[in-house]
Amino acid sequence: MVLDHPWCRVRQDEIELPNGKIIDDFFVSIKPEVTMILPITDKKEVVFVRQYRHAVGNFFIELPAGNFDPAKESAESAAIRELQEETGYVAENVRKIATLYDKPSKDTNQIHLFIAENVIPTGEQSFDITEDIEVILIPVESVLEKVAQGEISVAGTVAALFLGLNLLANQCS
Amino acid sequence: MVLDHPWCRVRQDEIELPNGKIIDDFFVSIKPEVTMILPITDKKEVVFVRQYRHAVGNFFIELPAGNFDPAKESAESAAIRELQEETGYVAENVRKIATLYDKPSKDTNQIHLFIAENVIPTGEQSFDITEDIEVILIPVESVLEKVAQGEISVAGTVAALFLGLNLLANQCS
Repeated sequence: MVLDHPWCRVRQDEIELPNGKIIDDFFVSIKPEVTMILPITDKKEVVFVRQYRHAVGNFFIELPAGNFDPAKESAESAAIRELQEETGYVAENVRKIATLYDKPSKDTNQIHLFIAENVIPTGEQSFDITEDIEVILIPVESVLEKVAQGEISVAGTVAALFLGLNLLANQCS
Repeated sequence: MVLDHPWCRVRQDEIELPNGKIIDDFFVSIKPEVTMILPITDKKEVVFVRQYRHAVGNFFIELPAGNFDPAKESAESAAIRELQEETGYVAENVRKIATLYDKPSKDTNQIHLFIAENVIPTGEQSFDITEDIEVILIPVESVLEKVAQGEISVAGTVAALFLGLNLLANQCS
């Protein structure tokens, strides 16, 4: 471990390359598992969160998501929890729709992606201390236009939207 | 800078939270800019690369992509270069279709996404020392099925495929 802080863990690995050569400076970021949820209201609106993202220094519209510890809770429970904490919406029926990866060359984590239809507003958000989150509702039929216009641009969220909305379109037809 | 190696740069920032509280341990990964390309042959096949990704420890099918230094080359030139190096295919006409973000809370980089139609095989790959890449052609009409089945699962690639193939479908109709 070359950096071992609760918020940032980096391991320096010695690895053998395909050609047999050994290198001793392959850095791996040990990241917590991520759960993400595509929440849809009974009025067919997607529930997004908008927040400032420090590394890039701008605001982003994303699906509710967060880290979790698989030893302490399931990805599904964590998705329901993050939705409630970040947006105040409650999900009753949650389905797993995909396992995605952010950057599998450097980051260890998976993104566990769920979809929840008919989520219900309770109005009670409960943020982490580092969070300041605005809830944004966008009609399902406008979402892909916002992606095409670049208003929604985080890869995990974009991938999740296409996967989830395709799934819904197919189950209706 | 708490870690400053050519392959891994981490900065520890002091930031003011929305509630006014100051924290001194927000870690930012200073990442190189990424260029990515969705290459399509005249037979309507997408050109993918399949390679081992060490942090997760598995093989992944992804679009050709790589890092570049904006001070030395444009994102467009870098996309054309990465395509040629990783796959041996040459792109003549390249269009920017989106700017995406991997993880804007922690990583500084953008993903500059391009599409190239009618790419031409030359057969000459030229790998970096760390690369061992298999080229895979998948017909355009089968790509989204592979995504739905989880065979293509890296968020940036999934987002890029939906964006690019939607664009092509709309321009044909």
